[in-house]
Amino acid sequence: MRNRFRKNIIVEMKNMNIRQLAKELGLSVSTVSKVFNKSHEISEETKKRVLETAEKMNYTPNPYASSLRGRKTKTIAVVIPEVADSFFSLAINGIEAIAQDKGYHVLIYLTHESFQKEQAILKDFQSGRVDGILMSVSRETIYSDHIKAVIAKEIPMVFFDRICEDVQTARITTNDFECGYLATKHLAEKGCRNIAYLSISSSLAISNNRMKGYKKALLEFKIPFEDRNIVDCDNDYNDNYKAIKNLLNNNMRPDGIIACVEKFTTPIYLACRDLNLSIPRDVKVISFSNLEPATILNPSLTTITQPAFEIGKAAATVLFKSFEKKSFRLELENIVLPSTLLVRDSTLKV
Amino acid sequence: MRNRFRKNIIVEMKNMNIRQLAKELGLSVSTVSKVFNKSHEISEETKKRVLETAEKMNYTPNPYASSLRGRKTKTIAVVIPEVADSFFSLAINGIEAIAQDKGYHVLIYLTHESFQKEQAILKDFQSGRVDGILMSVSRETIYSDHIKAVIAKEIPMVFFDRICEDVQTARITTNDFECGYLATKHLAEKGCRNIAYLSISSSLAISNNRMKGYKKALLEFKIPFEDRNIVDCDNDYNDNYKAIKNLLNNNMRPDGIIACVEKFTTPIYLACRDLNLSIPRDVKVISFSNLEPATILNPSLTTITQPAFEIGKAAATVLFKSFEKKSFRLELENIVLPSTLLVRDSTLKV
Repeated sequence: MRNRFRKNIIVEMKNMNIRQLAKELGLSVSTVSKVFNKSHEISEETKKRVLETAEKMNYTPNPYASSLRGRKTKTIAVVIPEVADSFFSLAINGIEAIAQDKGYHVLIYLTHESFQKEQAILKDFQSGRVDGILMSVSRETIYSDHIKAVIAKEIPMVFFDRICEDVQTARITTNDFECGYLATKHLAEKGCRNIAYLSISSSLAISNNRMKGYKKALLEFKIPFEDRNIVDCDNDYNDNYKAIKNLLNNNMRPDGIIACVEKFTTPIYLACRDLNLSIPRDVKVISFSNLEPATILNPSLTTITQPAFEIGKAAATVLFKSFEKKSFRLELENIVLPSTLLVRDSTLKV
Repeated sequence: MRNRFRKNIIVEMKNMNIRQLAKELGLSVSTVSKVFNKSHEISEETKKRVLETAEKMNYTPNPYASSLRGRKTKTIAVVIPEVADSFFSLAINGIEAIAQDKGYHVLIYLTHESFQKEQAILKDFQSGRVDGILMSVSRETIYSDHIKAVIAKEIPMVFFDRICEDVQTARITTNDFECGYLATKHLAEKGCRNIAYLSISSSLAISNNRMKGYKKALLEFKIPFEDRNIVDCDNDYNDNYKAIKNLLNNNMRPDGIIACVEKFTTPIYLACRDLNLSIPRDVKVISFSNLEPATILNPSLTTITQPAFEIGKAAATVLFKSFEKKSFRLELENIVLPSTLLVRDSTLKV
């Protein structure tokens, strides 16, 4: 919010407006207005009297009006693809832990993985609805003009988890490449020689970096890379179930699956059940996931678990630093918080 | 947003302000301003020219300013305890499906089950940040003055799932009483004679109505009600795990458990595992839950599944009706959408 504004605004609330309040106090509207603008021209005594009367009479200054005056909305936006994924719900908790300390509201906007929706949301921010933005881009996002336009308006923006590679601003991510490598190595060590990778999008850095790690491990274990083993999943449960069943229902079926996001877990388990394939005997499964019930699945699920809460905290911390210090250079912040491999029964060597 | 506002506002954006835009067009600021105010005084031709030039020069009218003028923020708020619960993430999808049709933004606010946080959020709404509110109250909410204050400002509000009984406005709920009865009856029919009920809060209508249904079924099956079988859980995983382990780790341990919300599932399963109790042989488990992996748990989980998406849709639909028709009486809307018992292995008769 670096806009400059010219006029004071007089706002009437239904029950009480600033003029009525001023009249009640025997003061001018401009004096009362200055109190809410935190002007130094007004004595402490008058300030106290105005605020007490405002409280008593249930007068709330309009936040839009005070935003226009004070250039602060005291809100930050979190733009994410969805909330059904445990990673995002935990990251939100981390963000809110920091925002609460700072006295900020957090608004959550969902793109539902739609580029068009993401554009519309960011367009709305251009005009100063929030003081800053924390964002994880949609699986459809290839172009970044909508993001650059917001940054051009000097609204601070921090990427977490899913970044746009050509946008120069803060990035809080996890070690996706290493984890893709680690997951694949784990499966190879358990005896898998035909490993499939379920991608969430061919344009997302997280998905591609994890896949690069997967390819590196294949090379290392002299496992040939096969195009048929890369499955581009999407946001629809039924589509994903069909694609996974297709993958598993043929002679070349994989003996190991890496799921790039947790939402593929249920369709993988159900496709295996429906095809009478045993996990881990016939197919071993590992998923990038923060799913709390991972331990009580049948079988329990081996996961690459991201530090979701910490990623949220770090992203919010960097954003608030940029609010507090104008010289702070967001584009220099590039924090990588490592994920952890948690081995459970779905990758057991039988 | 029924506030009345007195003055027009001149807002400068960083790259372009309305005066620069007016100068570029050779028009007065007031003429350009009238275009963004959708005034009928301006010819279609001039409107078109202004909007095209604004687009070209990347001028966006400030939404706060246009809110003040047009009394519409084109946003609705969803106030919920958390997003980690599948019920809420599905309900949000239902809400957004309707809001998108209407061209509205949805802002999600989380109370994290804190009454204080809920109060702060609602206080913020009083001043017209959103056009309407969809709300599910926190587990701590006993008093409703903060909600009544928002309604007094004529900001339309609809409760979904978790209501405040003494606030007169629209309610979209499920048949909690019947489902509490149904869950208990199901366990009794499978042979349970010592059934525990895990409550989320002793002040929430959903929790209490489900418990009333539980008590009715106990009576019907001549099972004595025992105080020790009501466990007040909270929002903390470890607290809940301990409380459940306590419940199960004694001579009077229940042979059936009804969980009032899905987040108790993992601690129940893990407490049973740690105590070497088999589900369903030693303890049968049923949970109110929209958890997608319910079918792939070990054992698969019997659930009372709420029509979460439909509840979200119905709540948003009622809210938009109140926007569109001033005479619409929200307090007369009381919609109950029934839930479904889905029997799986966690309640199998062994």
